[in-house]
Amino acid sequence: MPIKITDVIVRDIRFPTSRSLDGSDAMNATSDYSATYVTLVTDAPDGLTGHGLTFTIGRGNDLCVEAVKALAALFVTGRTLESITENFGAYWHEIVAGDCQLRWVGPEKGVVHLATAAIINAIWDLWAKQQGKPIWKMLVDMSPEELVRCIDFTFITDVLTPSEAIAMLRRVAPGKAAREAEMQDTGYPGYTTAAGWLGYSEEKMRRLAREAVEAGWTHLKQKVGADIEQDMRRARILREELGWDRKLMMDANQTWDVDQAVANMRRLAEFDPWWIEEPTSPDDVLGHAAIRARIHPIGVATGEHAHNRVMFKQFFQAGGMDFCQLDPARLGGLNEVLAVVLMAAKFGVPVCPHGGGVGLCQYSQNVVLFDYIAVSASLEKRVLEYVDHLHENFIEPIVIRRGRYMPPKLPGYGVTMKPETLERFAYPHGAEWQA
Amino acid sequence: MPIKITDVIVRDIRFPTSRSLDGSDAMNATSDYSATYVTLVTDAPDGLTGHGLTFTIGRGNDLCVEAVKALAALFVTGRTLESITENFGAYWHEIVAGDCQLRWVGPEKGVVHLATAAIINAIWDLWAKQQGKPIWKMLVDMSPEELVRCIDFTFITDVLTPSEAIAMLRRVAPGKAAREAEMQDTGYPGYTTAAGWLGYSEEKMRRLAREAVEAGWTHLKQKVGADIEQDMRRARILREELGWDRKLMMDANQTWDVDQAVANMRRLAEFDPWWIEEPTSPDDVLGHAAIRARIHPIGVATGEHAHNRVMFKQFFQAGGMDFCQLDPARLGGLNEVLAVVLMAAKFGVPVCPHGGGVGLCQYSQNVVLFDYIAVSASLEKRVLEYVDHLHENFIEPIVIRRGRYMPPKLPGYGVTMKPETLERFAYPHGAEWQA
Repeated sequence: MPIKITDVIVRDIRFPTSRSLDGSDAMNATSDYSATYVTLVTDAPDGLTGHGLTFTIGRGNDLCVEAVKALAALFVTGRTLESITENFGAYWHEIVAGDCQLRWVGPEKGVVHLATAAIINAIWDLWAKQQGKPIWKMLVDMSPEELVRCIDFTFITDVLTPSEAIAMLRRVAPGKAAREAEMQDTGYPGYTTAAGWLGYSEEKMRRLAREAVEAGWTHLKQKVGADIEQDMRRARILREELGWDRKLMMDANQTWDVDQAVANMRRLAEFDPWWIEEPTSPDDVLGHAAIRARIHPIGVATGEHAHNRVMFKQFFQAGGMDFCQLDPARLGGLNEVLAVVLMAAKFGVPVCPHGGGVGLCQYSQNVVLFDYIAVSASLEKRVLEYVDHLHENFIEPIVIRRGRYMPPKLPGYGVTMKPETLERFAYPHGAEWQA
Repeated sequence: MPIKITDVIVRDIRFPTSRSLDGSDAMNATSDYSATYVTLVTDAPDGLTGHGLTFTIGRGNDLCVEAVKALAALFVTGRTLESITENFGAYWHEIVAGDCQLRWVGPEKGVVHLATAAIINAIWDLWAKQQGKPIWKMLVDMSPEELVRCIDFTFITDVLTPSEAIAMLRRVAPGKAAREAEMQDTGYPGYTTAAGWLGYSEEKMRRLAREAVEAGWTHLKQKVGADIEQDMRRARILREELGWDRKLMMDANQTWDVDQAVANMRRLAEFDPWWIEEPTSPDDVLGHAAIRARIHPIGVATGEHAHNRVMFKQFFQAGGMDFCQLDPARLGGLNEVLAVVLMAAKFGVPVCPHGGGVGLCQYSQNVVLFDYIAVSASLEKRVLEYVDHLHENFIEPIVIRRGRYMPPKLPGYGVTMKPETLERFAYPHGAEWQA
């Protein structure tokens, strides 16, 4: 029997992370990690619901909430799940381009695209729960044709066509079962940003780095970009704790111009950074390509603010990134993530999605498992960000074993929050904000 | 005595243009031309107010209204005009990047950047009214140093530095007075889109084209992209009316993929189009460059949806556009427009801004007058869009003489609306929407 989406509930959820400077970096000094949280209510006899979110850092979350309401009224409420999933690529196109008026205030970027992500991911969650599988497993079990039907190829056919995508997926299909067993056994490699926040004292940073090494982490990320002397000092501390065999990554969070990024990375090169993340404007494809060419062999990582598949297409074409850090809640949901994962595989760029925030590790662990098992079939230069806060708010805990993500087991996309969290952190009327 | 901005009033103004299919194109079938309309109230004894707007096409305008409120509370209300204009470039940076939380839901794109445009342009309007000059004249009368102080060079110093900008402005300064006199005498060349809307019948289109020729227009734009056979048929009609000496431009409004754009333009080439506008995704710098290389000598025009100076920088670097169609209400207001105008001059790309919509012709006539008189000093390949509807809602009429824009005379940026318009078209409670 078809399941109908009878209502779309959207909540403004905010966590007061600015109080502890968790998540602080050179661009984002005081962030209240937040979620525009969508619940799809259905008429299924078992009360099945779908849950999705987009991540913001406080003010502006209300704008995403309103955008969800506008999109939901036009494209979601009253639809059956089957009518959406039978040609999910076409439906995705409808939601991003079907209403020219809402499209205008994007298009496919900013507030409306963030809202699209929350809705689309909630639909995937609903679908996966109906199938009784975590998203990564549902994707892995789909045929190449079924997967490709979920993708809107508009604006990317010059680099990837549906038939090419099907051929790519078929090529690696024979090893899927073995790679899935491997992941169940050893997990997916992760790295931690927990020690590196800019607002933490050097003592706290050293202590957290030492704990990270003891916990088995082999990759650690430092926030840079506010002051180069401070960056140098902190990198020295981190190298003292990490030694030189573990990888140290750096993240400038968009604070530099192109020439400045080159100059600063030439100084920081003595600490052997594996990558520099977001060295400049997230929109500057050619700027990233220029930086990359000039600071080789330090890698360039970017993508958490790249707003759609067209931007990623160009990053790949121009050689603008060594590491593809797509964000599963800034791209317009999983359908667009699939398009980017396939383009990345075609161009041979490793996908290392954005973690942290609210729910991003939860989403991204599904993405990388799918990527490894069914698309890229490679772990080379692949590592998934792990940030340790706010996980207690979700139904399913993330399981990290010696620095590796163990595959989630519960059906869905992994961002279903506990009812008490939804109540306590509701903005502005929840108990946390009334205090 | 310093003027303080004591209040920011923001209105949701919508015109029911979808009823007549004015403004219809292949992407935007039913648009209700709208404005997020900002009024800056001051404590000036003469009751001076500043007026600015951003343009949307209906739904989503409410999101921009809310974003204006959020930005205004943080950055505008209670500030003096002087504290803003004394280092306007730094202030502009503050409004786009000073609140990391609101920045996150852009950054510098979509709803928050549209809202920024409305506020910033209202500040310019206030400043120009205080000076008693229309914006174009105020800009023309500024020294190179004063102009450059209005620009935030963040993320563009790799192609343009402040000192380079000053040198460029100085180089053409000697001819300013003569060019100003020329503009007062003959006006700035325009083109019309009034005949070409996709929703108009072929008969209506032919009649309007004939009227345009009779009125002295030498350039006319056709909307294409819904159906290539229809495009061919309409182009034939337009060429019958225009002859072959007048210029015919075409506008696909983002409907094609790269290869499709090339294929379609090779067919439409028989009608000798001067440019194809927005052939594909507005974010696709490299796609536009590829199309441009493959359809030469047809020009590529784009930019009305290019969201910030970083996108324009790349279009110039990659050779992605022959005509720079910046939008004065999608870029973050005049400060960012100035940055793009200067980069365009450096790369030798003519600026032909987006007109039409609500208030865009009003804004853009100021931009092109400034560009010609004080920056590019050239009219080659330069022509400003004119769309004939909704002008009756503004205090100052646009004056077109034989297809040329005559310089506006009233102080300000030209988008001050009549009080009765603000009342009648207020959404959803104005008389027009209650009917």
